[in-house]
Amino acid sequence: QTLTTGQYDLVSYAIAGACFALFAYFLHSWRSASEVGVRYRPAVLAGMCIAGVATASYVVLVIRWDTGFTLSDGVYVPGEPARATLYPRYTDWTVTVPLLTAELLAVCSLAGARARRTRFTTMAAAFLMIVTGFLGSQVVAQGRSTSGLVVWGVISSVFYLYLYLALVGAVRASRSSMSPEAFTSLRNASIVLLGTFGVYPLVYAVPVFVDVTPSWFVGMQLAYSAADVLAKVGFGVLIHKVAKLRTAEDV
Amino acid sequence: QTLTTGQYDLVSYAIAGACFALFAYFLHSWRSASEVGVRYRPAVLAGMCIAGVATASYVVLVIRWDTGFTLSDGVYVPGEPARATLYPRYTDWTVTVPLLTAELLAVCSLAGARARRTRFTTMAAAFLMIVTGFLGSQVVAQGRSTSGLVVWGVISSVFYLYLYLALVGAVRASRSSMSPEAFTSLRNASIVLLGTFGVYPLVYAVPVFVDVTPSWFVGMQLAYSAADVLAKVGFGVLIHKVAKLRTAEDV
Ligand SMILES: CC1=C(/C=C/C(C)=C/C=C/C(C)=C/C=O)C(C)(C)CCC1
Ligand SMILES: CC1=C(/C=C/C(C)=C/C=C/C(C)=C/C=O)C(C)(C)CCC1
Repeated sequence: QTLTTGQYDLVSYAIAGACFALFAYFLHSWRSASEVGVRYRPAVLAGMCIAGVATASYVVLVIRWDTGFTLSDGVYVPGEPARATLYPRYTDWTVTVPLLTAELLAVCSLAGARARRTRFTTMAAAFLMIVTGFLGSQVVAQGRSTSGLVVWGVISSVFYLYLYLALVGAVRASRSSMSPEAFTSLRNASIVLLGTFGVYPLVYAVPVFVDVTPSWFVGMQLAYSAADVLAKVGFGVLIHKVAKLRTAEDV
Repeated sequence: QTLTTGQYDLVSYAIAGACFALFAYFLHSWRSASEVGVRYRPAVLAGMCIAGVATASYVVLVIRWDTGFTLSDGVYVPGEPARATLYPRYTDWTVTVPLLTAELLAVCSLAGARARRTRFTTMAAAFLMIVTGFLGSQVVAQGRSTSGLVVWGVISSVFYLYLYLALVGAVRASRSSMSPEAFTSLRNASIVLLGTFGVYPLVYAVPVFVDVTPSWFVGMQLAYSAADVLAKVGFGVLIHKVAKLRTAEDV
């Protein structure tokens, strides 16, 4: 499948833009972690680790995109490295999605054994959700088998559902232990995170319903890049705000 | 030996995922070392060094895996760099396994001459265990001689046994000097470390018992990647917890 120069440049732009946004957020969280009290520091450190890993992952993606196509007769023709411009994203998510749930929980106010159990089960569910999604989207028949996509997609969705409910429950349970202002930011953060969570299964399901034309492929790349920035940077900025507010309240 | 695209992608995913997990842990231990008191700081610093070395080692592995195979007629055919996707792991372990034992001992409570002796002998045993294992798995007849594998495997196992007993002894001896909570985490950490230690000799022994088909080869790569993450990151997180709890107790 060939891309027009417009399509190719648009994706180059989106991938490199996401990479820069993540890098900026990485630098910010590196230098601002100390503004947050020790108690909520794990949230900011999780955000920093997420941004570091995601930046590295996007650097690889940019290189693959760059080397993966050759311009001939005015169109971009994909070569071998172009195979690997969707699935490396799963590698990133395998590490970052469990960390995103840890980041959210680190500013909620579950305590003791309940906090440990929720953290462990949600991180495990996030990990398994991505691994099973990866099997469907890439390993089984290179993601070209509709039944493979559906079966693994359904298994992955079970973990998704658990994760969703557990995180909503944790946020709800935290309402009484912080100021309304901090809780509003926490609620916004969880809306951003769980809202962007909806984008990924939709993109995953594209090949089930339509034939993946170049336009669809470009759309998938743009959707993933935008959702990654929102879920990591947008969410992270809101969590940082909650952590700072709660630090001030605890004094 | 050729790999299907599914097999190839699965290993790419596992290696890159391990690399990201180690990188995240590296960033985390870099930035959080100061949360731990000076007395237990060496444990966190050892964890950081381990993660840094292992991340670099996995970057090399990812590059080798990427450049080591060419896709032709829908299957991945190994080229020369593909030879070096198992044994570079020994290079990493030669440095990191002695550091892992130092990391564990740094939160135990052996004192004075006994602490120094235990640290020296366990680090030496860990080093010799890996060096002798490397001789059997790679240097003697490229690891294809069963007798070479067995002889060096047995020699390596002697060091393994010593290491195992010495570390269990050090953990046991530390029980009385810390809170039950800290000791529980220390015990869990040593279970994770010594449990994953069991994976490596099993994978080493695979060629002694079976013909290494592509599926076995893929399984070996997956097992090593998962065990490395558990032994370095999972173990490290638990040690970090012990170090923080003991810092608080010492005040
Ligand atoms: C339910 C479901 C999925 C969910 C994926 C999600 C929720 C990914 C979230 C990624 C994030 C938040 C990345 C951060 O940058 C998959 C794996 C596509 C497979 C199909 C079923
Ligand atoms: C006993 C034995 C071995 C043990 C290896 C071990 C125990 C390796 C541990 C590695 C770790 C923990 C890496 C950390 O990431 C060898 C060398 C395979 C050779 C065969 C005999």
